[in-house]
Amino acid sequence: MSTRQEYDTFGPIDVPADRLWGAQTQRSLINFAISTERQPTELIHALALVKRAAARVNHGLGLLPAEKADAIIAAADEVLAGKHPDEFPLAVWQTGSGTQTNMNVNEVLANRASELLGGERGEKRLVHPNDDVNRSQSSNDVFPTAMHVAATLAVVRKLLPALARLRATLEEKSRAFADIVKIGRTHLQDATPLTLGQEISGWAAQLAHGERHLRAALPHLSELALGGTAVGTGLNAPKGYAEAVAAEIARLSGQEFVTAPSKFEALASCDGLVYAHGALKTLAASLMKIANDVRWLASGPRSGLGEISIPENEPGSSIMPGKVNPTQSEAMTMLAAQVMGNDVAINIGGASGNFELNVFRPMVIHNFLQSVRLLADGMNSFNDHCAAGIEPNRARITELVERSLMLVTALNPHIGYDKAAQIAKKAHKEGSSLREAALALGHVSAEDFDRWIDPAKMVG
Amino acid sequence: MSTRQEYDTFGPIDVPADRLWGAQTQRSLINFAISTERQPTELIHALALVKRAAARVNHGLGLLPAEKADAIIAAADEVLAGKHPDEFPLAVWQTGSGTQTNMNVNEVLANRASELLGGERGEKRLVHPNDDVNRSQSSNDVFPTAMHVAATLAVVRKLLPALARLRATLEEKSRAFADIVKIGRTHLQDATPLTLGQEISGWAAQLAHGERHLRAALPHLSELALGGTAVGTGLNAPKGYAEAVAAEIARLSGQEFVTAPSKFEALASCDGLVYAHGALKTLAASLMKIANDVRWLASGPRSGLGEISIPENEPGSSIMPGKVNPTQSEAMTMLAAQVMGNDVAINIGGASGNFELNVFRPMVIHNFLQSVRLLADGMNSFNDHCAAGIEPNRARITELVERSLMLVTALNPHIGYDKAAQIAKKAHKEGSSLREAALALGHVSAEDFDRWIDPAKMVG
Amino acid sequence: MSTRQEYDTFGPIDVPADRLWGAQTQRSLINFAISTERQPTELIHALALVKRAAARVNHGLGLLPAEKADAIIAAADEVLAGKHPDEFPLAVWQTGSGTQTNMNVNEVLANRASELLGGERGEKRLVHPNDDVNRSQSSNDVFPTAMHVAATLAVVRKLLPALARLRATLEEKSRAFADIVKIGRTHLQDATPLTLGQEISGWAAQLAHGERHLRAALPHLSELALGGTAVGTGLNAPKGYAEAVAAEIARLSGQEFVTAPSKFEALASCDGLVYAHGALKTLAASLMKIANDVRWLASGPRSGLGEISIPENEPGSSIMPGKVNPTQSEAMTMLAAQVMGNDVAINIGGASGNFELNVFRPMVIHNFLQSVRLLADGMNSFNDHCAAGIEPNRARITELVERSLMLVTALNPHIGYDKAAQIAKKAHKEGSSLREAALALGHVSAEDFDRWIDPAKMVG
Amino acid sequence: MSTRQEYDTFGPIDVPADRLWGAQTQRSLINFAISTERQPTELIHALALVKRAAARVNHGLGLLPAEKADAIIAAADEVLAGKHPDEFPLAVWQTGSGTQTNMNVNEVLANRASELLGGERGEKRLVHPNDDVNRSQSSNDVFPTAMHVAATLAVVRKLLPALARLRATLEEKSRAFADIVKIGRTHLQDATPLTLGQEISGWAAQLAHGERHLRAALPHLSELALGGTAVGTGLNAPKGYAEAVAAEIARLSGQEFVTAPSKFEALASCDGLVYAHGALKTLAASLMKIANDVRWLASGPRSGLGEISIPENEPGSSIMPGKVNPTQSEAMTMLAAQVMGNDVAINIGGASGNFELNVFRPMVIHNFLQSVRLLADGMNSFNDHCAAGIEPNRARITELVERSLMLVTALNPHIGYDKAAQIAKKAHKEGSSLREAALALGHVSAEDFDRWIDPAKMVG
Repeated sequence: MSTRQEYDTFGPIDVPADRLWGAQTQRSLINFAISTERQPTELIHALALVKRAAARVNHGLGLLPAEKADAIIAAADEVLAGKHPDEFPLAVWQTGSGTQTNMNVNEVLANRASELLGGERGEKRLVHPNDDVNRSQSSNDVFPTAMHVAATLAVVRKLLPALARLRATLEEKSRAFADIVKIGRTHLQDATPLTLGQEISGWAAQLAHGERHLRAALPHLSELALGGTAVGTGLNAPKGYAEAVAAEIARLSGQEFVTAPSKFEALASCDGLVYAHGALKTLAASLMKIANDVRWLASGPRSGLGEISIPENEPGSSIMPGKVNPTQSEAMTMLAAQVMGNDVAINIGGASGNFELNVFRPMVIHNFLQSVRLLADGMNSFNDHCAAGIEPNRARITELVERSLMLVTALNPHIGYDKAAQIAKKAHKEGSSLREAALALGHVSAEDFDRWIDPAKMVG
Repeated sequence: MSTRQEYDTFGPIDVPADRLWGAQTQRSLINFAISTERQPTELIHALALVKRAAARVNHGLGLLPAEKADAIIAAADEVLAGKHPDEFPLAVWQTGSGTQTNMNVNEVLANRASELLGGERGEKRLVHPNDDVNRSQSSNDVFPTAMHVAATLAVVRKLLPALARLRATLEEKSRAFADIVKIGRTHLQDATPLTLGQEISGWAAQLAHGERHLRAALPHLSELALGGTAVGTGLNAPKGYAEAVAAEIARLSGQEFVTAPSKFEALASCDGLVYAHGALKTLAASLMKIANDVRWLASGPRSGLGEISIPENEPGSSIMPGKVNPTQSEAMTMLAAQVMGNDVAINIGGASGNFELNVFRPMVIHNFLQSVRLLADGMNSFNDHCAAGIEPNRARITELVERSLMLVTALNPHIGYDKAAQIAKKAHKEGSSLREAALALGHVSAEDFDRWIDPAKMVG
Repeated sequence: MSTRQEYDTFGPIDVPADRLWGAQTQRSLINFAISTERQPTELIHALALVKRAAARVNHGLGLLPAEKADAIIAAADEVLAGKHPDEFPLAVWQTGSGTQTNMNVNEVLANRASELLGGERGEKRLVHPNDDVNRSQSSNDVFPTAMHVAATLAVVRKLLPALARLRATLEEKSRAFADIVKIGRTHLQDATPLTLGQEISGWAAQLAHGERHLRAALPHLSELALGGTAVGTGLNAPKGYAEAVAAEIARLSGQEFVTAPSKFEALASCDGLVYAHGALKTLAASLMKIANDVRWLASGPRSGLGEISIPENEPGSSIMPGKVNPTQSEAMTMLAAQVMGNDVAINIGGASGNFELNVFRPMVIHNFLQSVRLLADGMNSFNDHCAAGIEPNRARITELVERSLMLVTALNPHIGYDKAAQIAKKAHKEGSSLREAALALGHVSAEDFDRWIDPAKMVG
Repeated sequence: MSTRQEYDTFGPIDVPADRLWGAQTQRSLINFAISTERQPTELIHALALVKRAAARVNHGLGLLPAEKADAIIAAADEVLAGKHPDEFPLAVWQTGSGTQTNMNVNEVLANRASELLGGERGEKRLVHPNDDVNRSQSSNDVFPTAMHVAATLAVVRKLLPALARLRATLEEKSRAFADIVKIGRTHLQDATPLTLGQEISGWAAQLAHGERHLRAALPHLSELALGGTAVGTGLNAPKGYAEAVAAEIARLSGQEFVTAPSKFEALASCDGLVYAHGALKTLAASLMKIANDVRWLASGPRSGLGEISIPENEPGSSIMPGKVNPTQSEAMTMLAAQVMGNDVAINIGGASGNFELNVFRPMVIHNFLQSVRLLADGMNSFNDHCAAGIEPNRARITELVERSLMLVTALNPHIGYDKAAQIAKKAHKEGSSLREAALALGHVSAEDFDRWIDPAKMVG
C-alpha cells in the first residue's frame, strides 16, 4: 500500500496515499481499534455543514481569504453530496469530545480544498486543517453543534414524516372500522365493548402526542454551541461570529437554529439530547404497546384472539409448515427495547460531564441517531408491511362481543353494582348467557334487559 | 382487636372496627403483603380531590342527591386536610389498575360520609362506595386521572419552586464571582481560562432549561381520563360529565386541567408520565453534573483542586478526625442515580399496556412521585446546606490560572496553531513558564507575549 | 419537647431527651431532609451485628475492657431483638459512605451501653461512640461489611426460601398436569403441541437456574471489608483483627463470611452487589415471563385463551360487576419492572466510585434490599394466591389442540416441508380441518394421516 | 442486475444471480429495511458450526446420506473460514425468533452444498434448506443454540484474554509501585495514606473478581437448546440426537457444551444471556471506576491531581495547542455506559417471552456480542495505549502526602478521636502543619509526634 507522510504536533505519520485524511485521523485509527461502530454519516454531514457555514462567515468577517473559503465550501459540498464516504473511518469509541472526528473532517476538507485549489494533499497543502478549516472553532463547540444539527435534521426529516405516515394509516383504519363493535379488554380480561375504530384511535392518539413530544424537544436542540470555542468564552472567535454562523446553518439547512444563549451549558452538558431522547423513549413505549396489541389481536389462527388479520409476508417457521408470524410487531418491539437501552446509555453519558466539557459525546450522538433510525425505519416498515393491511375478522369479533359477561355493566345505573355482579357471577359459574342469568335472578325483566343491554349503544 | 363485618361481591370479611376502610381494602391487605412501599400520600389526596369533584358534578347532573354529595365532599375535605392518614394502607404492589386503592378511597369516603350523615360505617352505611362515591366513574379513568393530578401538582407546587430557588442561588453566585478569572478544564485537563461566574452560569443555564423541559411536560399531564369510565367509551357517565369534572378539578386545584381528547389513549397508556419523567431524568443528569463539579472544585483540603469552599456541616469520618466531606453532593448524585433507575421502571411499565388499559399504574406513579420528591428535596437541601455557602478560594484560583499552559491558545491567531503547540510542549517538558518557552523559541517577542497573554482578556 | 445537649467535633447540639442517638445523627436529620426513604432495617441489624462482633474481638485483642465490651454486646443484642426501632431515623440520601448511619448506630449503642453500665446517655456517657463502639473500625469498612452481611442474609433467609416454595409449587403442577396435551404457541401463533406439565416445567426450570445464579453471587458477597479501616490499609486495626471479626460474624449469623482478600476493592467498589443484583434482575426477567404466561393462559373468561383458571381473590373492578382479574400477575410484573429499574440505579452507583471509596453506598444497598423484598414477598404472594391454585380448563384445552393446523408438522419427515405447508395453507384458507385438506390434496392417505397426526405422540 | 428465481412456500421471488441466498433471505431484505445493524458475524459462524454438527449427527443417525452431509459440512467450513462474508445481509430487526437468519444460513449452505455436489444453486439444487440443512432442527432451537455458542466463544476467546492482559499489567504496576506512599482519597477529600501499588491492586482485584463473575456465567450458557425443535418437545428429532449434537459442537469448538436439561426453558427464555450480561455490566462498572481513577490521577498537567503520567498518544485539541487528554479513559467510560444501556435492552428482551418462545432473540444477541466486543477491544486498547505506560510522578506524590492533615488519624489510639480532631481542625484553619498544630495544642510531644506520624508506617 502506497503511503504519504502527514504531520501533526506529534510529528510525522504514514497515511495511505489514496486517502484524504491526515495525521490525526491516522493516529485515531491506530489508537482506537475498538469494535465496529463508526461515527454516523448523519453526524459527518452535519460537521461538513458546520465547516461550510464557518468558512463563509470567517470570510465575511475577514478571517479567511475568498479562495480558501470557496475551496472549503466546495469540498464540504462534495461531502454533503455523498462523495468521499470512506474518508471518515473513525470509531465511536475515541476521545469523548469528538476531537478526532472534527480533525478528520478538518483534514479531509483541507486536503480536498487544497486539491481544488490546484495544490497537493498532505503537508504542502494550501489549506490548513486547524488555522483555516477550523478557524474560529474548537472541537468543543463544533462537535456539540454538529450533534444538535444532526439530531434536529434526523428528527425533522426522517422521524416526524415516518410518524405522520403511520399515524395517518391508523387514523384511516380507525375511521374505516368505526362501526365494528368488539369486546374491550382490561387486565387481559373481558370488559365492556368499544368499536375497533375506537381501539385504533387510541394508538393514533399516542402517536399524535408523540409528535408533540418531539416538537417540544426541538427548541433546546436548535441552540448551537458554535462561537463558544474551547471552554465557552468564545476565545479566538470574533464578535458577531456566533450569531452569524448559526444564521448561516439555519439558512443552509432550512431549519431554525440559533446561537446558544449559554455557551457554557452548550459545551458542558448534553442536556438537549438527553431531554430529546426522552421523547424518543416515550415513542418507543407507545410503539411497543401498539405493536403488542396488533400481534395479540392477530394471534391464532385458531387458538388466539383472532380479531384482526395482518399481512402474511413470509414463511414463519423453518419446521412448522404454513406458519405465519407477526414479524413486523416483533421487529418493532425489539427496536423499542433497544431505544430504551439507548436512553440509559445517553443518560449516563449526559450526567457525566465535568467542568467545561462533557466528554461522552460520540457515544451520546451514536445512540441518539441510532434510536431515530430505528424508530423511523421501524414505523415505515410496520406501516407498509403490517398496519396498512390490518383487516377485521368480523365474524370472530361479533361472536366474542355477544357472549361477553361484561355487558352487564350497562345495568349498574338501573339495578346497582351489587345485583349486576350477582348476574355476571351466576352466568360465569353456570356457563349461561347473561340474559338467562338475569331473568333467573329476577333482577330485571326480559324487556328491560333487551333494551338496556345493547353493545352498539354501549360504545358512546 | 375488635372487628366489624364488611361485605363486597365476594361476601363478608372482618375489618378492624376502628377503621373506615371496607371489604376490598381488607382483601387487598391480605392478598398483597408485599414489601414496605405504600401508595403515596400525594396520590391519595389526588384521589380525594377527584372524588370531591365527581360528587359535585354528579349532583349537578342530577345523579346524586344533595345530602349525599355534601357528605362525600365533607369527607373528602377531611382527607385533603390531612385527617385519616392511616386509612390508606395499601401496597404499591397490588392490582395494576389501582382498583384496590380507588376502592379504598371509595370505602373510606362512603363510611365517613355515612357517619357525617348520622349513619353507621359498614354494611348499613347511608352512602355506597360504588353506586355513590364512584358514581359515573371507573377505577380505569379515576386512577389515571389521579396520577396526572398528583404528578402535575407535585411538579408545580414542589419541584418547580425548588428548582427556582437553586437556580436563583446559582445566578447570584454567578454574578458575585463574575470577575474571578480561573482556569478552565476540559477532559479534566487544564484549558483556557474563564471566570468562576461563567462556570457557575453554565449550571444555572442547565436549570433554566430544566424548568422549560418540565413546563413542556405539563400539557399532556393536564389531560384527564375521567369520563372514559371502564374502557374509554364513557359508558355510564352522562353527557357533559367529562368536561364538567375536569373543570371542577381545575377549579379546586387552581391548576389547568382539561378532559383528555382521547380517553382511549388516557386509559391504555401512561405516555404522559413516561414523557414527563423524561424531563425528570434530564434534570437528574443536570444535577449530577453540577453536584460533581461542586465536589471536585471543593476537593482537598490540600491534595485536591481546592478552588472553592463549601459549608462544613458535620464531621465526615468516624475514624479520620477533622475530616469534612461534600455530603450534599453525595446525596444529590445518589438520588440522581435513583431517578435514572426509576426512569427505566417507568419506561417498562409504560410500554406494557394491553388493549384498553395499562396495568402498571401504581408502580409508575410511585416512581414518578418519588423522583419528584427526591429532586425537589434534594435541590432544597443542596441549596441550603451547600450552594448558598459556596465561596471562592481566591489565592488558589489565581495560582492555578497563572501557571496554566493553555493560555498559549491566545497566540493562535498571531503565530498559528503549530508554533503555539511547540511553546506549550516545551514549557510542559521543561517545567518552565509559557513566557520563558515562548521567548526561548523566538516565536513571539516579550512585549507581544505580555500583550496577548492576559487571562483577564481571554474570558470574553 | 425536652432535649439534652450532645457534642461532637462540631460542638454542641440539642437532641430529644428520650432519644438514644447523639450529635451526628441529629445533624444528619437536619442536613438531609430528603424524601421518605429511611435506611433499611436489614442494614441497621447488620450494623448491630458488626458492632457486636467487633466489640468481642476488640476485647479479645485487649483493646476494649470486658465491661465495655459486654455492655456494647448487650446493647447490640437489644437492637437485634427488634428493640429501639425508632432510633435509626436517617435518610437513605445522606453521605455516600453511610458514615452518618454508622455513627447513628455507634451513638445509640454507646448511649445504651452506658445506661446498661449504670451511666447516663449523652456527653457523660461511659462508652464512647468512636473510641469504643467504633474501635478498630471506620465507616469505610463497617458500612460495606454491613452491606454484604445484610445482602447475604436477605438472599439466604428470605429470597431463596421464597424461590424454593414457588419452584416446588410449579414442579408439583408440572407433574399433576403431565398428561394434559395442549397447543403450543410461538410468536403468539399456534404451534406444535406439548403438555401443560411441560409448559410449566419450563417455568420451574427458570427458577432452578435462578437459584443457581443467586448462589453464584454469594462468594463475592461473603467477602467482608472489615479490617480495612479508612482506606483499605487497616490503619489502627490490630493484626489478626480482620480475620477474627469475619469469623465472629460468620459464627453469629451462621453464614459463611471471610475477610476480603483485597480491602482496596472492598472499599472502593460495590462490585459484589452490582454482580449479585445481576442475578436479581435475571430472576425478575424470569418472573415477568412466568407471570405474563399465567395471566395470558387465564385470560377470558370468554374472549381470551382460557386454558387455565387461577384463584379469584377479590372483585376486579369498581364499575364492571363480577369482573375478576389476574392481580397477582400484575403485582409481580410491576415489581419485576421495579427491580430492573433498581438495577440501573445500582449500576450507576457501582460505577461511580473514586479512588479509595465508593460513596453511592446507601443508595446501592437501599435498592438491593428493596429488590430482595419485592422478589421474595412477590413470589410468596404469587405462590399462595395464584400459582398454588392453577387448574386446567380441560375442555377448552382439548378443543384448541384438536383444531390446530400446526399438527401438520408431524408430516414433515414423511412428505417433506413443502407439501406439508400446502396442506396447512389450504386448511387455513378454507377453514377446513387438516385431515380434510390433506386428503383433498392427496399428499397422504387417511390411514397414514391418522397414524402420523396424533397430538399425544407429538409431545416427546 | 442479473437475477434467478427462488421459491419458498410463498411462491417465486427474484434473487441476485450471484448470491447464494434464497427466497426467504430475499423476502426479509425487502420486509425489514430497518437501520444499519446486521446480524453479527460471530452469530453467523455459530450457526454454521451448528449446521455442521447437525449434518454429521443426522448422517450418523441415518437421516442424511453421506454425500449430502459431506457437502453441507464442506459448505459450513467455508463459512467458518471466512468465505462468503456478504451472503448474510439480514438486519437485526427481523423476526424475533431469528428464523430468517436461520433460513439465510440454510439457504446459503444448501445452495453452496449443491454446487459442491456438482449441482446448481436455486430451485433445482440437490440439497434442501429445510429438509436437509435444517434436518432435525427448528429455528426455535437452532437460534438459541447459536446464541449460546457465539456468546460462550466470544467470552472465552475474546473477553477473558483481554481481561487477563489488563489484569496482568495492573498487577505488574502494583508490584512496581509497591513502595510509593501517596495520599489516599475518600469522598474526593484527603484521607490516610496508602501506596500507589495498593491503590492499583484494588483495580486488579476488581478484574480478578470480574473474571470469576464471567466464569460463573458459563455453565448456563453451555446448555444448548438443540433437540428441542419447535416448542421444546423434540418433535421430528430422533432419540439421542440432542446429546450427540451437543457433544459434536463441544468437539468442534473445543469448549464444554451440553444439551439443555430443560428445552422448554432454553427456548422460552434468554435467561442464560440475561444473567451472563449481568457479569458484563459489572465489568463495565469496574472499568468505569478504573478509567476514571486513571484520568483523575493523571489530571493536570498543572492544575489537577497530577500523581501519575499516562502515555501521550495524539494531539488533544483542535484549538488548544499542546493539549493532551486521557482519551483511552474516555473511550472506556463511554463504552462502559453503552454496556449498561445494552443491559437494559437485554433485560427487557429477556423478560418479554411468551409461552414456548422468546422472540426478542436477535436484539438480545446483538447487544450481548456488542458488549463483549466493546469490553474486550476497550480493555486491549486501554492496556496498550494507557495502562502499560502509567508512571508515577514521585515528586508530586511526595509533596501531597507530606502536607496531608489526615495523617492525624494515627494519633487516635494514643490521644483519642476528639483531641486528634482538634489538631487537624486547627492546622486546617491556620494553614499550618499538623506538627505545629499538635505541639501548639499540647496534645502530644514532638518526640511522640515524629514517632507516631510516619506515612510509610501507616500503609499496613
